[in-house]
Amino acid sequence: MAKLQGKALVAQGGGPTAVINQSLVGVILEARKFTEIDRVYGARFGVCGIKEENFIDLTRSTTHNLERVGDTPGSALGSTRDKPDEKYCEEIFSSMQKHNIRYFYYIGGNDSASTCHIINEQAKAANYELRVIHIPKTIDNDLVGTDHSPGYGSAAKFVAQSFAGVNLDNLSLPGIYIGVVMGRHAGFLTAASSLARRFPDDGPHLIYLPERVFDPKKFVADVDKVYKEFGRCVVAVSEGIHDKKGNSIMANLLNTGEKDAHGNIQLSGCGALGDALANLVRKEIKNKRVRADTFGYLQRSFLGCVSDSDRWEAREVGERAVQYSVWDDVDGSVAIDRVGDYAVRYGLIDLKEVAGKTKTMPDEFIASDNMVSEAFRSYARPLTGNLEHLERIMAVRVEKK
Amino acid sequence: MAKLQGKALVAQGGGPTAVINQSLVGVILEARKFTEIDRVYGARFGVCGIKEENFIDLTRSTTHNLERVGDTPGSALGSTRDKPDEKYCEEIFSSMQKHNIRYFYYIGGNDSASTCHIINEQAKAANYELRVIHIPKTIDNDLVGTDHSPGYGSAAKFVAQSFAGVNLDNLSLPGIYIGVVMGRHAGFLTAASSLARRFPDDGPHLIYLPERVFDPKKFVADVDKVYKEFGRCVVAVSEGIHDKKGNSIMANLLNTGEKDAHGNIQLSGCGALGDALANLVRKEIKNKRVRADTFGYLQRSFLGCVSDSDRWEAREVGERAVQYSVWDDVDGSVAIDRVGDYAVRYGLIDLKEVAGKTKTMPDEFIASDNMVSEAFRSYARPLTGNLEHLERIMAVRVEKK
Repeated sequence: MAKLQGKALVAQGGGPTAVINQSLVGVILEARKFTEIDRVYGARFGVCGIKEENFIDLTRSTTHNLERVGDTPGSALGSTRDKPDEKYCEEIFSSMQKHNIRYFYYIGGNDSASTCHIINEQAKAANYELRVIHIPKTIDNDLVGTDHSPGYGSAAKFVAQSFAGVNLDNLSLPGIYIGVVMGRHAGFLTAASSLARRFPDDGPHLIYLPERVFDPKKFVADVDKVYKEFGRCVVAVSEGIHDKKGNSIMANLLNTGEKDAHGNIQLSGCGALGDALANLVRKEIKNKRVRADTFGYLQRSFLGCVSDSDRWEAREVGERAVQYSVWDDVDGSVAIDRVGDYAVRYGLIDLKEVAGKTKTMPDEFIASDNMVSEAFRSYARPLTGNLEHLERIMAVRVEKK
Repeated sequence: MAKLQGKALVAQGGGPTAVINQSLVGVILEARKFTEIDRVYGARFGVCGIKEENFIDLTRSTTHNLERVGDTPGSALGSTRDKPDEKYCEEIFSSMQKHNIRYFYYIGGNDSASTCHIINEQAKAANYELRVIHIPKTIDNDLVGTDHSPGYGSAAKFVAQSFAGVNLDNLSLPGIYIGVVMGRHAGFLTAASSLARRFPDDGPHLIYLPERVFDPKKFVADVDKVYKEFGRCVVAVSEGIHDKKGNSIMANLLNTGEKDAHGNIQLSGCGALGDALANLVRKEIKNKRVRADTFGYLQRSFLGCVSDSDRWEAREVGERAVQYSVWDDVDGSVAIDRVGDYAVRYGLIDLKEVAGKTKTMPDEFIASDNMVSEAFRSYARPLTGNLEHLERIMAVRVEKK
């Protein structure tokens, strides 16, 4: 069989992560090894750049430059929030045909997988030979068919270390602290707040996930109970918490909120949910020091808080994507299988298995309506890698005179 | 001359930092070397714990335990926001006398220096031999008489790396981003947002310090101008910005805000200022993606973002404090002198020179009403140490077909 000859195109979609450029660099360096691939193009700003033929030629970028880009957070090609429909994909496909693109790699979440699926179908219908590979990426860890997604481990490490720090801060100056973590539907990132706990009274003492119904009255009672026990309380809350009707707590508490192009209420990039929850606690539990932080964009692209396993896996899914498309001549989404404790193997799954679907925390990872389980901690620990070890002073009390 | 024999007492005051425990450990380990010091006590929760005789005996804490505590952020002894007056200090002094405390080390900011000064005067008046040493600590870097304060370098590194990350995020998904940084009167920490910039269009593009008057109209015009030039805009704002009458912008925009025990409006631990500024921009500059994050408590105790020089200097000011008090039999506040480029020497200055005073950014560190100068960057770089090196892809544009 004659191998498919043409150009490769790589793009990045959705929110950036600390390691998404590792996948990009994995694709570029691997693609440049194959004689089937004439040139490696990058699209600026995701599908938006493909539609507009906004391409750069990565074929001659130096290895040093690319390796340094791999170590830099953010989407080096630029990204987009566009979610293409059939018509939009036709324009993308037309642009690809003009440039004789035969290998397409799209690094992104479930929306990017949907785009890959639509384009793949269009290419088949047009009898145009095009290999399409989706490369998983999301800090939310909400992609189905893969044990976990590149980008999650580093964001989880940031969240774990942040809560370790605010827990120490709260031990120093006791009070009630609420930290709001990203994650509209899946609680994996919020759950990571538990990973650096060491002593029995370390926070977060309460963790609220979007997988469980959030009841403001119960929340205040929970905080009150912890405060009475420890004289302080650290709470981790997912931005996506909702009531039993499925309505966003943020929308309920504020009766407002900016909506994005898809009609979703803007959850990140504003401190409103944290402030509203803090006010709720202040109103019900008097005379307490109450503080709220919204972790916002810091958790997505912080420089210098990258998980080792996350970095290498992000690189390898990029390399594997190219290998599947050229060696095996197939389409799909790269998936990570967990084997043993802890190693990974890579596989390729159908695009339509991933497209538009959302994975949430399984029940076994949730201990109660306000806590994660030990099973979650076992699952997540290899993904963040070793976290720093906190110490407390060991000394005896002096008797009063 | 007979050496002063008795117990040593160490305490931590005010907001914790990532390295305040290094100073604590420096005091403990150094004090344990001197035969003049019978026991080393620690007060829980600062002056509050001294008043209540809430002491622990650190004389037998293991070196391993202490070394690990040194590497742990937060105030390991616990801290307090109490600002003692004369009467409060009399109670402290009485408690010290009961326990034959002859060496007192208080790690904190200018309020802690005030406490040291009052107690020192009371001891002199009572003819009670007591050595009192203030050990500098603050992320705000607002202590007078010292080139910089331990705690600042690590917090500055966190702020610099955070802005490097959000700048990359903003390059990926362009829009307007506002990050609110701690610092009620001094802009040093907000200014640190500039330290990891590398490319000419890297953010933050605008930096607003409490040392300059903040005009909301000018702010919106500044953002609009940057947005027109770069298609995006990253802004660093100090929580302490105020109008020309000296009124807090947060209070003006919100006409509210929790007040603390000293009548200060609560600036940290809520996202209100960032959200208000974002709304201002949204109202005036239409159809733009505007996001605001308030860095809050993350910047003060984040685990795993410590500056090397900050760590060692924090340790050394603790050691020096003990040496001055025992070898030289003097009182004062430990100060850091910068020599050469870059080395430090330690000195001791009068407590009353530091007590209650606030240092702000000198004019030479401020380039205009919305930017810092190269002089500031030269001043601050050795304090954070090397920051990670950001890279962008070097590649040529592909012509459209």
